[in-house]
Amino acid sequence: MAGHNSPNPNWVAKFIPITAWLRQYSRQELNSDIFAGIITAILFVPQGIAYAMLAGLPAQVGLYASILPPLIYAFLGTSRTLSVGPVSIAAIMIASALAAPELAALGSPVEHAIILAVEGGLILLAMAVFRMGGLVKFISHPVLSGFTTGASILIIFSQLPHLLGINKQQCGYDLTCQLSALNPYAAGLGIFSITLLLLMGKPLTRTLKKMQLRENLVTGISKTAPLLTVIITTSLVSYFHLYDTQQVAIVGEIPKGLPDLSFSFLLNSQEHWLALLPSAIFISIIAYVESVAIALVTANLRNEKINTNQELIALGAANITTAISGGMSVAGGFSRTMVNFSAGARTQLAMIIAVVLLAIALLAFTEQFTHIPKAALAAIILVAIAPLIKLREIIATLKYDRSDALTQTITLLAVLFLGIEEGIALGVLVTIIAYLQRASLPHIAVTGQVGDSEQFRNVTRHKVTTWPNLLLIRIDENLTFANITYITDFISVQADGKPELEHIVLQFGSVSYVDITAFEALCSFIEALDKRDITVNLADVKGPVMDKFNKMDLDHHLMKGQVFFHTIDAIKTLSK
Amino acid sequence: MAGHNSPNPNWVAKFIPITAWLRQYSRQELNSDIFAGIITAILFVPQGIAYAMLAGLPAQVGLYASILPPLIYAFLGTSRTLSVGPVSIAAIMIASALAAPELAALGSPVEHAIILAVEGGLILLAMAVFRMGGLVKFISHPVLSGFTTGASILIIFSQLPHLLGINKQQCGYDLTCQLSALNPYAAGLGIFSITLLLLMGKPLTRTLKKMQLRENLVTGISKTAPLLTVIITTSLVSYFHLYDTQQVAIVGEIPKGLPDLSFSFLLNSQEHWLALLPSAIFISIIAYVESVAIALVTANLRNEKINTNQELIALGAANITTAISGGMSVAGGFSRTMVNFSAGARTQLAMIIAVVLLAIALLAFTEQFTHIPKAALAAIILVAIAPLIKLREIIATLKYDRSDALTQTITLLAVLFLGIEEGIALGVLVTIIAYLQRASLPHIAVTGQVGDSEQFRNVTRHKVTTWPNLLLIRIDENLTFANITYITDFISVQADGKPELEHIVLQFGSVSYVDITAFEALCSFIEALDKRDITVNLADVKGPVMDKFNKMDLDHHLMKGQVFFHTIDAIKTLSK
Repeated sequence: MAGHNSPNPNWVAKFIPITAWLRQYSRQELNSDIFAGIITAILFVPQGIAYAMLAGLPAQVGLYASILPPLIYAFLGTSRTLSVGPVSIAAIMIASALAAPELAALGSPVEHAIILAVEGGLILLAMAVFRMGGLVKFISHPVLSGFTTGASILIIFSQLPHLLGINKQQCGYDLTCQLSALNPYAAGLGIFSITLLLLMGKPLTRTLKKMQLRENLVTGISKTAPLLTVIITTSLVSYFHLYDTQQVAIVGEIPKGLPDLSFSFLLNSQEHWLALLPSAIFISIIAYVESVAIALVTANLRNEKINTNQELIALGAANITTAISGGMSVAGGFSRTMVNFSAGARTQLAMIIAVVLLAIALLAFTEQFTHIPKAALAAIILVAIAPLIKLREIIATLKYDRSDALTQTITLLAVLFLGIEEGIALGVLVTIIAYLQRASLPHIAVTGQVGDSEQFRNVTRHKVTTWPNLLLIRIDENLTFANITYITDFISVQADGKPELEHIVLQFGSVSYVDITAFEALCSFIEALDKRDITVNLADVKGPVMDKFNKMDLDHHLMKGQVFFHTIDAIKTLSK
Repeated sequence: MAGHNSPNPNWVAKFIPITAWLRQYSRQELNSDIFAGIITAILFVPQGIAYAMLAGLPAQVGLYASILPPLIYAFLGTSRTLSVGPVSIAAIMIASALAAPELAALGSPVEHAIILAVEGGLILLAMAVFRMGGLVKFISHPVLSGFTTGASILIIFSQLPHLLGINKQQCGYDLTCQLSALNPYAAGLGIFSITLLLLMGKPLTRTLKKMQLRENLVTGISKTAPLLTVIITTSLVSYFHLYDTQQVAIVGEIPKGLPDLSFSFLLNSQEHWLALLPSAIFISIIAYVESVAIALVTANLRNEKINTNQELIALGAANITTAISGGMSVAGGFSRTMVNFSAGARTQLAMIIAVVLLAIALLAFTEQFTHIPKAALAAIILVAIAPLIKLREIIATLKYDRSDALTQTITLLAVLFLGIEEGIALGVLVTIIAYLQRASLPHIAVTGQVGDSEQFRNVTRHKVTTWPNLLLIRIDENLTFANITYITDFISVQADGKPELEHIVLQFGSVSYVDITAFEALCSFIEALDKRDITVNLADVKGPVMDKFNKMDLDHHLMKGQVFFHTIDAIKTLSK
């Protein structure tokens, strides 16, 4: 408009980050991205199906979530390597949300999952519009690690029956019954899959490195493990008809072709939307926190920047798109991003390539997916989830700080025994209570004069002059409802210890805010001291604080006390 | 045990405060207390019946609450003038709790009220045992004033039909219908009562003072207004049989005699107890906050001390006693305490005397209570509640601070339109969010050296030396999950503005706590800067903070940075 001639004005670069990096794209980056894209695509099929299974949804819901959402994120996201799609933590949260008995009457599980995704997307967009991304800081580190570990343990327990081919419904929690119901063929496939996946992890990488192969080739070979597992086990199931003769559970038929785009979720009842809203809030916030945390890890390693508000927009749009294309909620996944990153991805072009490959698979190879045994998928989930159990972090927190460790432990236990959403909510609550608890114990010190100087220091730490008729107290924090009682109690105790006391001088140098609760409490306190003929005086009051005090007619409330510009003036006037 | 010979050891004085003051009791104090006791007793009957009516309970439930609870408080409480009994705010909260439709199947309103009282008492005792009295600070001043004003307005609306003799059920919210259903006799009695009460307030006091009567005699005469109102209106109703011929609503028969003591509430079902628990929590916390606030006002005026933990015990015991003796929840009431105090009460003996007089009334005069018109009681409630509408305080808060004013307005509106408990809960929530919001914007400053000294000051406020290769940043607050993002963002922006930057020195002099979230974020931030060949160094780190950092192997996390004892050491080593 205003004479802006650039073909790519600032706001375009800001809201569609891909336009910024695509202009400086190099041949070398393209090579890296193609390789990483192929490797990531190999992970897309088994993970997409597995996480749909984890959420209790048909396989295609996970695959569809791996097509449009990563594409949208590639255009809108600020991370160059974040891989967006179905993720394990969101999947178990969806499973937990879908378990609510009142939902059965409102629609099918797929309908619920789509509404959860679109609601989550809208919540993230609203957070972006209202710049509320800062709210997620309440998911503090201890809450996040306690939650992640708890959710991972729940995922493991949810997958063990699939891994061993146990039909849980028959036995309930009776372990011997469960083990007798174990399907030895399924269990064999499951244990074979886990062994293969583990061997193709660190042991294979180490061997290949010793053979001096190029690093990202090593990564590439090692990351084909899930695909290889699926190919081998599926071939066995197909060849020996295990799904038929031995009742080994398989994925079943997956519709061929790309997902249809549909807005039919708009037709669902208001009641249906409302019933899913609380879960959608939790899922979307955790999806966002997880995504940004992973994006920051990779961005820091390459000295790139993440814009958190733009991430809200990108992830919000990705979740709305997944809903439109019949997929489940998406986020930036830990394992898929690490695969992408360590395979050498430079930009989101890697993800675009991966999506194209997945689309080809959906158009041509869905029949081959039918006989994938669920035991192999369970194995893939288990191996992917294991690094999320952060026992080491939990122990580190325990060593570092009791209050943080308590928050973490409560969150972990609540996730395991009360439920996923309850665990997060309780964790946030404990974080806030512990924070306010600490804030209610402010720094406050009795001070005295250093020699003849204009300096005043804590009497317990320095050799300073004090006076029998005067008490000098330095308050080191803002005065609020949370700490004013502690402060007045502290001053009371100090005043009671000085029989000749006539004046109290409060050093307000570090106080830049006094809320109304603290102001009123301070006024009552001054009045009570006035009855004992002790004046309360202020010194070093900052401009904005003084302005507010004057509005409330401070002179009147101070009774016989005064406001001094510097502490030294108060000492000269009042000390005997 | 250990050679303690005093007949009144310290712990007795602590837990039964009456034993402390009774030993120094004087003749003059006795005179004052007897007078104040009589005046307060006069208020007990109309207020007891009126607040029972306000709560939707039979009259005796309010009267019984005025017998044992004030007696128990007299022994256990630390305030010498607090008058404990049924209060208007608790009454409207009980009414709101009893309105829950699911309660009807579980028992009678009186049963509900007794369970609410005993649960509230147990909650207060538990808070005392676990020293959780500090939790009530979350009922910040704006929440309390917004809530009190909102509840008072609700009380006024609830009493207007009684005052005017309107049978609300017939008309719903149709105003013309309501006014046509108005009972002119009841309305006449109501308006007469209000006029009498108002005239016997300030106008009468002023006239009597002009006549130079003794001050507490003036108070005494003026405080008989409620009794006089009741006597006049009841006589009119009785004499003209208005209850019969004109359907003027009256109190009805009240059982003669003192309450029976009963523990039958223990037989109520667990479901019944659980259904009332949330309301009991709100009622007991508000009762405690209100009581302590009033106790502090009178204690400050006489230079006495209130022990808040002992108050939890005293009010907890009073509420359990009210339940045992068939009464409703109790608290320290504003109007009854002010009457007691301004009538000259010196100690809780005044309350003991008032209770004895009320007991005599219950034994001998209950028949006289039967014909008290509800319109007169509504008038007494309205006149007592008016001073609790704190419009002036609300305006003062508005002038003082926007965020506090917002909290207050939200609480007030929520109490009016969402419900009493919802209003308090929302107010507390807003208080905490606003607090955390403010805490997430910490003080942080780029500093420089003052001349050749060892002093470092904010570059924007003082003329100081800075260096192109070094950035000195002072953090003035504890580092937590709430503010760490702001801090790292601030440092990033500063670092981006210095192309020759090699070293950042963080002055930790005011930091006495770093939580694990902040620590982890700081470590990632340091790693990211390391990639840009910028070192992060610390200076002036306090002992406890350093201990924790060392536990987490700080040297490793600092990469190439160092920890300096004083800022000046860092400058000498790093500046160019």
